[in-house]
Amino acid sequence: MSPPEELLTLLKQEHSFTIASHINPEGDAIGSSVALAIALKRMGKDVGVYIKDGVPEMYHFMPAVEIIEDSLSLESLKDRIFILVDCNEPKRTGIEETFQYRLSVVIDHHETKKDFGDIRWVEPEAPATGLMIYYLLKALGVEITPDIATNLYVAIAVDTGTFRYDNTSAEVLRVAAELIERGVSPGWVARNLYESWSTRRFNLLRQMLNTMELHNSGPVKVAITVITEEMFRQTGTDASDTDDFSNVARMLRDVDVSVLLRQDGPSKWKASMRSKGEFNVAKVAKVFGGGGHRNAAGFIVEGSLEEIKGQLLKRLQELGSN
Amino acid sequence: MSPPEELLTLLKQEHSFTIASHINPEGDAIGSSVALAIALKRMGKDVGVYIKDGVPEMYHFMPAVEIIEDSLSLESLKDRIFILVDCNEPKRTGIEETFQYRLSVVIDHHETKKDFGDIRWVEPEAPATGLMIYYLLKALGVEITPDIATNLYVAIAVDTGTFRYDNTSAEVLRVAAELIERGVSPGWVARNLYESWSTRRFNLLRQMLNTMELHNSGPVKVAITVITEEMFRQTGTDASDTDDFSNVARMLRDVDVSVLLRQDGPSKWKASMRSKGEFNVAKVAKVFGGGGHRNAAGFIVEGSLEEIKGQLLKRLQELGSN
Repeated sequence: MSPPEELLTLLKQEHSFTIASHINPEGDAIGSSVALAIALKRMGKDVGVYIKDGVPEMYHFMPAVEIIEDSLSLESLKDRIFILVDCNEPKRTGIEETFQYRLSVVIDHHETKKDFGDIRWVEPEAPATGLMIYYLLKALGVEITPDIATNLYVAIAVDTGTFRYDNTSAEVLRVAAELIERGVSPGWVARNLYESWSTRRFNLLRQMLNTMELHNSGPVKVAITVITEEMFRQTGTDASDTDDFSNVARMLRDVDVSVLLRQDGPSKWKASMRSKGEFNVAKVAKVFGGGGHRNAAGFIVEGSLEEIKGQLLKRLQELGSN
Repeated sequence: MSPPEELLTLLKQEHSFTIASHINPEGDAIGSSVALAIALKRMGKDVGVYIKDGVPEMYHFMPAVEIIEDSLSLESLKDRIFILVDCNEPKRTGIEETFQYRLSVVIDHHETKKDFGDIRWVEPEAPATGLMIYYLLKALGVEITPDIATNLYVAIAVDTGTFRYDNTSAEVLRVAAELIERGVSPGWVARNLYESWSTRRFNLLRQMLNTMELHNSGPVKVAITVITEEMFRQTGTDASDTDDFSNVARMLRDVDVSVLLRQDGPSKWKASMRSKGEFNVAKVAKVFGGGGHRNAAGFIVEGSLEEIKGQLLKRLQELGSN
């Protein structure tokens, strides 16, 4: 995996950059953007980072994230290089208007049919954008400082489930090994990512687990969990606390599909589906007007909880019988 | 980390070996023993593996574990090399009698004051015995087959929390990277280790989480969870299903010590304590006649649940104030 020459030339020759990443940012968006920003600063450049939603509380531990701003003057972009990181169209950053920039760059590992970007570096095989930024900084000859290393390590860790997903490769582990040598403390990162739950969030998880229904009799084994607005009120939580909750039921051996139905209005529900292996939940999401990938998809639907459960189970079993 | 020359010579020159590991075996005991056994077999040796408790269900996915036997003829050891793996005295394997062997070997990463073993290779700095076996097989020039690689990978993964504990080093990740190149599927291993819960065990976890009490007002923040014999009956589980349950409450940011009280008789309780950072739960365990390490200790106590909780909280807060 090597960055295009024209990207290296651009980063060396230009002076003013604005890095932007997607709304609802996770570790890869934040770590990749911040690592690139630190590196460009060390090269003497003028750099800003824009993420509309700011840095979620769970990522506050990451070094140097203060550089991220949640506001952006579109006017100022006119004379700057606009770099999209971990996404590939301005809309994903929350910018809805048209705007001008000196030149645009895309650095992303998501497959896409969009063609935004004067310079595009897209590697659908890369497990994380953080890995691409690592190779980019190597090619630029920038020193990997402890802050850069930690940001890249978190980026890679989050997108590989800390080396538990299928995208974990020998290459990923070797890069992670070098980042440790550059100053990352892997235990400290893991404690911050996985052992820093608020009591509120934990109470919400408990309530969600208590709603779990297992539907094991059909060809597809489905676990359904529910989070109501009443649960949010009782525990003092909100939707931002449910990150990753749709995955929890996957820990069960006898579950092919995990469904989380989260209430978002008196009779409005957001369904998040996660599947194991070959089962394609995106097909089911499509039936309900939603979308996603094979193993992670979702949709929004109006109706009573019981109706929605019934319809969804029917569709899941139909697809499973085909 | 390199194995002693006399160990290499012994393994090359002798013909008959019995490998034994500890009772309640986990991934490191099983993976290290099996990997060494496969290697010795490939060198044309006669090899047996003895683990008194056999292979727990959750490790049945590991390749070649059929070689493990849960019975042992002490008589037959007379002419064989007896190799202790991941432990350092015969008692830990469940052998209580004295017995004869041709020569004995210890390969272990646990610190010890015992002096069993004609040849002792003990590396307290090694995160897993699996890492030692890797270097041993390299030094012996044995090919790392996919079965050997997977056993070593599981051994290392289990003892480093799949690269989340403080013992995760650049070296560990580089060895893991090579094992992937030798045929390990990291995603498949992780699914087997972390996404293969039985519904029964999951139901027990739910019940345990519902008992959680947080005691946050003192200098030490304590989470207490309880598992009663009634819960085992209701969920169809037993003590072997509670592996790792004492760690669950550590995921909370505001918890310094996680305590699991598991009923083991009408008024008998087994306490397992897990702490973060500097807090030394072994000191508290000692007060109750138990033992352990700084971050993991336990004891057995008779009494009513409320009494025990009260006494334990008092001791934990006392230690926390010092």
